[in-house]
Amino acid sequence: MIKVNFKSHNKEIYCNKGDNLLEIARNSNIFIDAPCNGSVSCGKCKVKLLKGNVDSEKTLHIKDDEWEQGYILACNTTVIEDIEIEVPSKLSSSMHGMKIEGSDKKKDKQIFDRAKNIIETHNLDFKTNIVKTYIEIEEPTLDDNLSDVDRLERHVRNNLGFNEIDFKLELLRKMPVILRENDFKVTITYVKKKNKITILNIESGNSEDKLYGVAIDIGTTSVVVCLVDLYTKEVIDKASSGNAQIKYGADVIHRIIYSTKKDGLTKLNQAVIDDTINPLLESLYVRNDINKDNVVTLVVAGNTTMSSLFLGVYTDYLRQEPFIPPFLKSPKIMGQDIGLNVNDSAYVYLAPSVASYVGGDITAGVLSAGIWASEENILFIDLGTNGEIVFGNKDYMMSCACSAGPAFEGGGISCGMRASNGAIEKVSIDKANLNPNLTIIGECEPIGICGSGIIDLICQMLLTGIIDRRGKIYRDLDNKRIRFNEHDIGEYVLAFKEDYNLENDITVNEVDIDNFIRTKGAIYSGASTLIESLGMDFSVIDKVYIAGGIGNNLNIENSILIGLLPDIEREKFAYIGNSSLVGSYLALISKDAKKKLQQIGNEMTYVELSVYPTYMDEFISACFLPHTNIEQFPTVKKLLED
Amino acid sequence: MIKVNFKSHNKEIYCNKGDNLLEIARNSNIFIDAPCNGSVSCGKCKVKLLKGNVDSEKTLHIKDDEWEQGYILACNTTVIEDIEIEVPSKLSSSMHGMKIEGSDKKKDKQIFDRAKNIIETHNLDFKTNIVKTYIEIEEPTLDDNLSDVDRLERHVRNNLGFNEIDFKLELLRKMPVILRENDFKVTITYVKKKNKITILNIESGNSEDKLYGVAIDIGTTSVVVCLVDLYTKEVIDKASSGNAQIKYGADVIHRIIYSTKKDGLTKLNQAVIDDTINPLLESLYVRNDINKDNVVTLVVAGNTTMSSLFLGVYTDYLRQEPFIPPFLKSPKIMGQDIGLNVNDSAYVYLAPSVASYVGGDITAGVLSAGIWASEENILFIDLGTNGEIVFGNKDYMMSCACSAGPAFEGGGISCGMRASNGAIEKVSIDKANLNPNLTIIGECEPIGICGSGIIDLICQMLLTGIIDRRGKIYRDLDNKRIRFNEHDIGEYVLAFKEDYNLENDITVNEVDIDNFIRTKGAIYSGASTLIESLGMDFSVIDKVYIAGGIGNNLNIENSILIGLLPDIEREKFAYIGNSSLVGSYLALISKDAKKKLQQIGNEMTYVELSVYPTYMDEFISACFLPHTNIEQFPTVKKLLED
Repeated sequence: MIKVNFKSHNKEIYCNKGDNLLEIARNSNIFIDAPCNGSVSCGKCKVKLLKGNVDSEKTLHIKDDEWEQGYILACNTTVIEDIEIEVPSKLSSSMHGMKIEGSDKKKDKQIFDRAKNIIETHNLDFKTNIVKTYIEIEEPTLDDNLSDVDRLERHVRNNLGFNEIDFKLELLRKMPVILRENDFKVTITYVKKKNKITILNIESGNSEDKLYGVAIDIGTTSVVVCLVDLYTKEVIDKASSGNAQIKYGADVIHRIIYSTKKDGLTKLNQAVIDDTINPLLESLYVRNDINKDNVVTLVVAGNTTMSSLFLGVYTDYLRQEPFIPPFLKSPKIMGQDIGLNVNDSAYVYLAPSVASYVGGDITAGVLSAGIWASEENILFIDLGTNGEIVFGNKDYMMSCACSAGPAFEGGGISCGMRASNGAIEKVSIDKANLNPNLTIIGECEPIGICGSGIIDLICQMLLTGIIDRRGKIYRDLDNKRIRFNEHDIGEYVLAFKEDYNLENDITVNEVDIDNFIRTKGAIYSGASTLIESLGMDFSVIDKVYIAGGIGNNLNIENSILIGLLPDIEREKFAYIGNSSLVGSYLALISKDAKKKLQQIGNEMTYVELSVYPTYMDEFISACFLPHTNIEQFPTVKKLLED
Repeated sequence: MIKVNFKSHNKEIYCNKGDNLLEIARNSNIFIDAPCNGSVSCGKCKVKLLKGNVDSEKTLHIKDDEWEQGYILACNTTVIEDIEIEVPSKLSSSMHGMKIEGSDKKKDKQIFDRAKNIIETHNLDFKTNIVKTYIEIEEPTLDDNLSDVDRLERHVRNNLGFNEIDFKLELLRKMPVILRENDFKVTITYVKKKNKITILNIESGNSEDKLYGVAIDIGTTSVVVCLVDLYTKEVIDKASSGNAQIKYGADVIHRIIYSTKKDGLTKLNQAVIDDTINPLLESLYVRNDINKDNVVTLVVAGNTTMSSLFLGVYTDYLRQEPFIPPFLKSPKIMGQDIGLNVNDSAYVYLAPSVASYVGGDITAGVLSAGIWASEENILFIDLGTNGEIVFGNKDYMMSCACSAGPAFEGGGISCGMRASNGAIEKVSIDKANLNPNLTIIGECEPIGICGSGIIDLICQMLLTGIIDRRGKIYRDLDNKRIRFNEHDIGEYVLAFKEDYNLENDITVNEVDIDNFIRTKGAIYSGASTLIESLGMDFSVIDKVYIAGGIGNNLNIENSILIGLLPDIEREKFAYIGNSSLVGSYLALISKDAKKKLQQIGNEMTYVELSVYPTYMDEFISACFLPHTNIEQFPTVKKLLED
């Protein structure tokens, strides 16, 4: 046995000679960022060897002085003797941190009120099919010695008018004691089904007013859980954190690959359920003094991979031609089937997927965006870890997926992070001295940069002449913020560590910019190909809705200037936030909305871009700032000419 | 920490000073017989202290020389320092042993053939509602990229004519891989429900002929599991063992009391599922090369307490006035709900109970005995750990329960054991020298005596003048087989240890006989009270069916002579074996029989003997050999007068 001492975490782990250092950390729940899932391509799993020797190779990601200081990549390191390791913590834990964040209640209220507006506008019901009723059952005697179950059934038959009751074993297990705790005066929670009811919960005494549902958005990067009062239909509270699966890879492809390894599927499933959603639920229960047994219905939205991993279903065929998902529509699932921290009998409904790479997050998003009822042509763009695009109106809806990568959520960018406290969300650059002006979420010290910040930054670097239209830094600039490493890769310093209390400078380099350009190119070319496939062009668009975790401060103008969004009238654009979560919320509080959601899943058409003949050319043309064909961006053309 | 070294088991257990020795053994899975569940009343938990000191008191159950040798009762012993303990093993492990026993296939065939006869006689169907079909699904392509679930559903719709499919999550989890293992050629197992099917299993390739069900009889003392081919309806194999719950008490009352202790309910549930039924199932699978996923339906019969503990449902109200069971009819249960070693989606049906002390073993027994269709008046007596009695015909059925105790299965008798190998099952005594002639199951060395043997023995002791009609041994007999201890309790030696290779003599003493007389008195008085409650007497009986674990060699004549059974025409009696198991088998292979079973549960009337005014007097009169009023036993009267 070999001992690995993770100094930074105060943890000593015993393992075997020849074990991989990244796997050792994962198995011991020590988070090391590894977006490329250990394929020695991203360089993010850099750790510092403090003591002992390892079997490791220097890669391009490690600078000479770093190598001398003991920096190694965990993913290509094999342990051969007792060692001490330090994991750099600040950025990685903020980037993917499991810190649970609460909600901005005022902002949330606006979003959810706007959603409720959809229900009112389209005359949908405001109902769930779950009822709670206080009943007083006759107590048993020697002469009236019906069993507990038969007694309850008799009461339901005589007083509520249903013939039969049904329930899960767990309920039967607690029934005898609960009935007697309050002299057979209890509150039952049930779902009606014709002549029959399924009882989800029995509680002692009268608790008719305590009935809750949960809407969950499972993003590849972030997870948001939203607690809803099923009586008032109000959002009581919201909590979010990183998706703990991220230690197994930043994007769905790397996670799918990990899921095929030994116990990989189980680990990914546990990461999202046990390590992400359940702690979020628990935090909501504690904050709002709620009993989990009163949470009886859930709507969950995630992309097709997230939905599969949420249920622990084998996902590998999603990434193998012909790209077949295991399921699209929600199977019948109860809380206990997947170990969710809610009522065992709670109904868990998954927003339907459309294809392998257009999932429930998109159908839920489309529900909340109201495309299904719109006379106008709407372009819906979800800027998440993947990029998905929907175009249509009440008559048809077309969708496609772009392999955008996680750049909009800070992934694949050396100092990237989620749009949470410490993230640089807005950037402007002074043309004279090239100094940046930063806006930071939470108004604290900067930790990294989130999607909206990167868009601003690249746009500003282009406009101030730091980079050219390929995204390369001009070699002739003489500025302390611009520097080149030994491999001649240029970088721009957003924040010097001396100016703040940082471990390292916050920088964006040419590799980051290149990654981001490919990401924005994928989105733009996806949208134009999708519309082109209908024989139309961007001029037919009436509205563009931007959704996703990119952050509230997305600058539309800048997004157009870098060629992420089409150069059309600015008033057509709107950022609609986490539309997947809002759609889940709608389906939670309205039976009609849930039906509508199912219908969207059934009716949406999927266009497979990878087999679409002109897509590749279009993508390559779009990997430019703003585009190889600048005529498509008249505004930018004019600006650059000025 | 204190160390208890169980020498006999080669186990060292660490515990705290002040812990109870019986509990220490139980928690460490060391079996110490304790039918009275540690209430210092039965004396069965005798163990030998080899080293160290304990805090323990001498009781009546420990002879002076035993006390000197270090014998103590585990239940009234507190550990105070490191000790070494020996647990006497032979009798107790045979009595309650978890040794899995196979079946006598020829004898079984007769029993189950007789059962099938019931189905034929009454024109019931020979059907289960579970179907297995081999299907060849079209393989997916880029153009036909339906999800796995939708693809299967489409195939079912187009080829089998059902609109919708339903399944448990576990099935979805394995579906993607199984579909591809054999190029989308699979066998599905399903249950039809109108337009819909619930899929229980998917297997690669064609396995249409592999479809099995299981019938289980959960006795308080013994458990029998019976594997059935659902195509041929034949019993393939059978296995039985003791009920591992027995370490928590020999009868239902002691188990219920134990269930109210911390973790008690869980322990009792695990004892019957994990430690009894699952190993029995596993042994059947191994012996017959069967995959558990092909076991898709079960019928389980047990008394009301056993049914509750099988499901892990709180049972304490069963023994508190007004004696309310948690449930009577079977809740909807699947294999995975209770951790059974069968297909996760297997339907588990429990034979319905009638009252707290007339359970599913009796309704199943009545089903197999055919009372529900009989023109004749049938008296049905189940001689199990409890004694239950049913009287009736096709027009009505009355039932009652007697607190018989476990004597018929060897419990409460110092050398008693189950009717398994080594049990003395027949006894005759030579009037001249009072030497016994023993018949032993398995034709091996005797270990103890089972129910049928005790009946023979007591009858022979009465007829040969060893005991009087109160069951007391005549003090004036001079025979080496008759001896009295220091408390003047007499005993008769059935087998001297020198004659066989035994640790101790096999004896029956006056306390045993007294226990047995009370047991048989409870049965007889129960039967007579039940019939009397209808204003009838034994003369109206057309048939008497004896069921239960008392053993195949029950001697009817002797049973009448000791006053267990009424003194009516001998040809009216029949021993019908484990009728509970046979009834479960019937319900497993015939939908009509299952419906009939449910109906029996609904229609049977329960008479609560404890509140019936004349029962107590009747019971006391019956605690005599054969009865205080010998006029009720003309045959015996004549014999004793001779």
